[in-house]
Amino acid sequence: MTHVYRLIISCPDQVGIVASVANFISEKGGSIVEANHHTDANNGWFFMRHEILASSLNCSLDEFKAGFKQVADQFHMEWFMADSEKPKKIALFASKESHCLADLLHRWHENELPGEVACVIANHEDLRSMAEWYQVPFHYIPVTPDNKPQAFADTESVVEQYDADVIVLARYMQILPPQMCADYSGQVINIHHSFLPSFVGAKPYHQASERGVKLIGATCHYVTEVLDAGPIIEQDVIRISHSHTIDDMKRLGRDVEKTVLARGLRYHLEDRVLIHGNKTVVFAN
Amino acid sequence: MTHVYRLIISCPDQVGIVASVANFISEKGGSIVEANHHTDANNGWFFMRHEILASSLNCSLDEFKAGFKQVADQFHMEWFMADSEKPKKIALFASKESHCLADLLHRWHENELPGEVACVIANHEDLRSMAEWYQVPFHYIPVTPDNKPQAFADTESVVEQYDADVIVLARYMQILPPQMCADYSGQVINIHHSFLPSFVGAKPYHQASERGVKLIGATCHYVTEVLDAGPIIEQDVIRISHSHTIDDMKRLGRDVEKTVLARGLRYHLEDRVLIHGNKTVVFAN
Amino acid sequence: MTHVYRLIISCPDQVGIVASVANFISEKGGSIVEANHHTDANNGWFFMRHEILASSLNCSLDEFKAGFKQVADQFHMEWFMADSEKPKKIALFASKESHCLADLLHRWHENELPGEVACVIANHEDLRSMAEWYQVPFHYIPVTPDNKPQAFADTESVVEQYDADVIVLARYMQILPPQMCADYSGQVINIHHSFLPSFVGAKPYHQASERGVKLIGATCHYVTEVLDAGPIIEQDVIRISHSHTIDDMKRLGRDVEKTVLARGLRYHLEDRVLIHGNKTVVFAN
Amino acid sequence: MTHVYRLIISCPDQVGIVASVANFISEKGGSIVEANHHTDANNGWFFMRHEILASSLNCSLDEFKAGFKQVADQFHMEWFMADSEKPKKIALFASKESHCLADLLHRWHENELPGEVACVIANHEDLRSMAEWYQVPFHYIPVTPDNKPQAFADTESVVEQYDADVIVLARYMQILPPQMCADYSGQVINIHHSFLPSFVGAKPYHQASERGVKLIGATCHYVTEVLDAGPIIEQDVIRISHSHTIDDMKRLGRDVEKTVLARGLRYHLEDRVLIHGNKTVVFAN
Repeated sequence: MTHVYRLIISCPDQVGIVASVANFISEKGGSIVEANHHTDANNGWFFMRHEILASSLNCSLDEFKAGFKQVADQFHMEWFMADSEKPKKIALFASKESHCLADLLHRWHENELPGEVACVIANHEDLRSMAEWYQVPFHYIPVTPDNKPQAFADTESVVEQYDADVIVLARYMQILPPQMCADYSGQVINIHHSFLPSFVGAKPYHQASERGVKLIGATCHYVTEVLDAGPIIEQDVIRISHSHTIDDMKRLGRDVEKTVLARGLRYHLEDRVLIHGNKTVVFAN
Repeated sequence: MTHVYRLIISCPDQVGIVASVANFISEKGGSIVEANHHTDANNGWFFMRHEILASSLNCSLDEFKAGFKQVADQFHMEWFMADSEKPKKIALFASKESHCLADLLHRWHENELPGEVACVIANHEDLRSMAEWYQVPFHYIPVTPDNKPQAFADTESVVEQYDADVIVLARYMQILPPQMCADYSGQVINIHHSFLPSFVGAKPYHQASERGVKLIGATCHYVTEVLDAGPIIEQDVIRISHSHTIDDMKRLGRDVEKTVLARGLRYHLEDRVLIHGNKTVVFAN
Repeated sequence: MTHVYRLIISCPDQVGIVASVANFISEKGGSIVEANHHTDANNGWFFMRHEILASSLNCSLDEFKAGFKQVADQFHMEWFMADSEKPKKIALFASKESHCLADLLHRWHENELPGEVACVIANHEDLRSMAEWYQVPFHYIPVTPDNKPQAFADTESVVEQYDADVIVLARYMQILPPQMCADYSGQVINIHHSFLPSFVGAKPYHQASERGVKLIGATCHYVTEVLDAGPIIEQDVIRISHSHTIDDMKRLGRDVEKTVLARGLRYHLEDRVLIHGNKTVVFAN
Repeated sequence: MTHVYRLIISCPDQVGIVASVANFISEKGGSIVEANHHTDANNGWFFMRHEILASSLNCSLDEFKAGFKQVADQFHMEWFMADSEKPKKIALFASKESHCLADLLHRWHENELPGEVACVIANHEDLRSMAEWYQVPFHYIPVTPDNKPQAFADTESVVEQYDADVIVLARYMQILPPQMCADYSGQVINIHHSFLPSFVGAKPYHQASERGVKLIGATCHYVTEVLDAGPIIEQDVIRISHSHTIDDMKRLGRDVEKTVLARGLRYHLEDRVLIHGNKTVVFAN
């Protein structure tokens, strides 16, 4: 992996932003590896992402950031810089179903996932040995109707203990409490096994079968307090027919679920997803 | 096109149906060009479609049907036979938008659509010259809030005048009255410009933009009294991103709308769609 | 999994085959769970697959087969019956790359693969611990330019030791000797990382990049003596653009490779693939 | 359609290009509607496309271009500017098959195609009335083994008479002479009915059937002297099975052919395609 800094910007649109940013990068010797812009004409908002070759800068990252603050202030930017050599730490939340967890752990193990899996937190013991084969700490925190406040307090403690940057609900099957959604806003990624907004909530394949749809899908989205209604990062579908039972749908759907979650998570880990209101700008690659 | 008879059957499932049907066809010398079965294990219902080479029969179609009645009665079948040389007559309903109408007329003109376009009925004059180029009678029946009962009575008259077997709402943009939905149950095909059940009703691309989905779609379905809730025949999707405006979605969506409608209509015209409750069995090819 | 017998037939087409087969099944009380027919009009050949509920038969499987022989002989059928409770034994051949092996082992572990993984044979040690976590015997047989005849003799011995029914080249990266291709004709399944017949042989992603294609793909096929030219079982593609490097293609391609291989293998394990000449009939579900 | 100027640049990569270009645009008051960059790290080449709001400039287009020449020279740029209100003129070449011609004419008629159809040139009379309904001049220039040099000389005359900017081979079925390929390099767009590089040349669906592929496709590419080997603009595929005859493939393929050609042509008309060697950079939207 090439060592790059990522400069992520969003701000009200106006003439001169690109020039000011490009000038600043150029002054610092920055060689631009990848650049993406988006103007949302409806909202008058501007979004920008640069990957800058780390070795090309004629100053330190701290100096770059200190200098850039002036540009940022001038245009009222929300911005941050990320360092590809300081990958985000991931807390994987799982339950009993293994396909998403196995897929993400394998990708991470093969250096395909540009992040660091810090721990697995699960409300069942089933997947412990899988996590342990990958030498990832496994925390078993059962969640019952009676222990929810304590269970999620414990869960947050573990997340904090590992200083995790992102929580991935890899078919966790539990609804996070509103306060936790708020605390980790924009940092919790879920995979829902339907093409949202169709079939919100429980048993989406049963709902899909009932409605007789000809495609089933999966949706990777940020978690908010409203169930399955957060900003969508990525979606995909697969064709089914009358000949597929609900069990067939589950089998076919698992392939979509895991690839959609892996794609969405990769976009997040590479700072390719900019949230604006309840929508996302995804500078995919 | 090879001349075939299509034998379409649905009935409660039990052992011996296939043997009885196959025996009967074999006794009559029937050469089977295509055969499809489906057992719905949940409902204990059986579905079957045969294409039989017309020239292979050692009896007339009427004799075949008279003889088959005994088999059918024994198994409590709903059944019918269709003759590929008596294609279904189609009434195309349109409004101002031309893409679905132009697509269907062109396919018909090129002998790609296994049916006969009998007439176009439209609530605006815009598409008259297009229909006329294809030498299809064009009936202009405006629909206003005030004239609805009369307008739809006139519309039904025209449909009856052409003895149409199927009504296609090719972006007609009007809601048929409940009585008409009932009268033509299983004979009215609509194209809805969303991946149903998402975004029922008006302006689905606006709804899709608002929700921030990453794929948009189209759904071809039978019309029932409940808006956009009838049995689904065919669906497809296309990828979009943050960079696509609602106008872009409309442009991209038109391609999906017209291919999904054309596919769904072809299935219907070839008697490949069996309705059961609010779902379909589609023996696609 | 429901216990079924699968009856697979191919023979010269003529009137009466379906009736004779259906009669025989019906006489034996057989309840048909799934049935598929295909007539290849060009070659005058007929293909048929039935899934029969095991518990519905009024005789043993051996009696069924003994009786069916008469029907089969009458129509000059090639045929066999398979028992879903005697799943095929699989020998997985691997090298260093893990994505296909990990995917298949995981599916098998989750009871998604309707077969039994008997062993892993690899020409490198890299994937030993993965196989062992799944408690699958791992055989390390290095292949060098000098030891090929002995290495493949050893390999065949291991395959025979486990009485494997199917060999899966899960990115094995070695070309099997012609004699082995002949010995295991129709039993060796390979995944090639291109949309065949494009980019046969080595480094297909480099070839794809060189040609500037906009989609890359993968092909699951039976191995024959001619490299990457055997009967195709399944293919799929994924979109790329100018912005993707060869490393990106490899990453994106891995997802296609593993799903295409898993789909193709599942079809084979469920006896859904009928080879005819250099082509396949795949009664997919 | 918003009135924009498109600034298209390619040049050797170095630090400072983006800043210089952005500065220049900003100095001229230019509001950037869309911006795309691509760095080809292998070749050290840089590609850039801007859409600039015409009304935002504080100078004329000519003044902008005169001023920009200095920036361009400094970085050894190949560049040009296009005006969205001066759409490219299109010469459509056709033969007997209508699907691509009908599709493009309809899109143009509906203001979906950002270009101006100047004329249709065909080697058969079949499509005359279709062109005339759209009020597009139709030129019938038969091509026979004996008259080729004269026929193509006449063809070039007609293209020149309309001052066409782009030639679209809408299933023209004739091979252009090498000199014409050279004269109109980068300006002739073909649709080939296979997923290139598979099945070059004649009868690709027959070739696909022979090989037993499970997907068929279409490729939109620039024409060069080497048959079906020019830079690829766009491709897509559709799934087929053993049950599809060559006629079915043709029917299914037509839908892919026309959408792939329409997409590729739209990219070209909006100056989204940059040719580099035998490959393209496509800044799609």
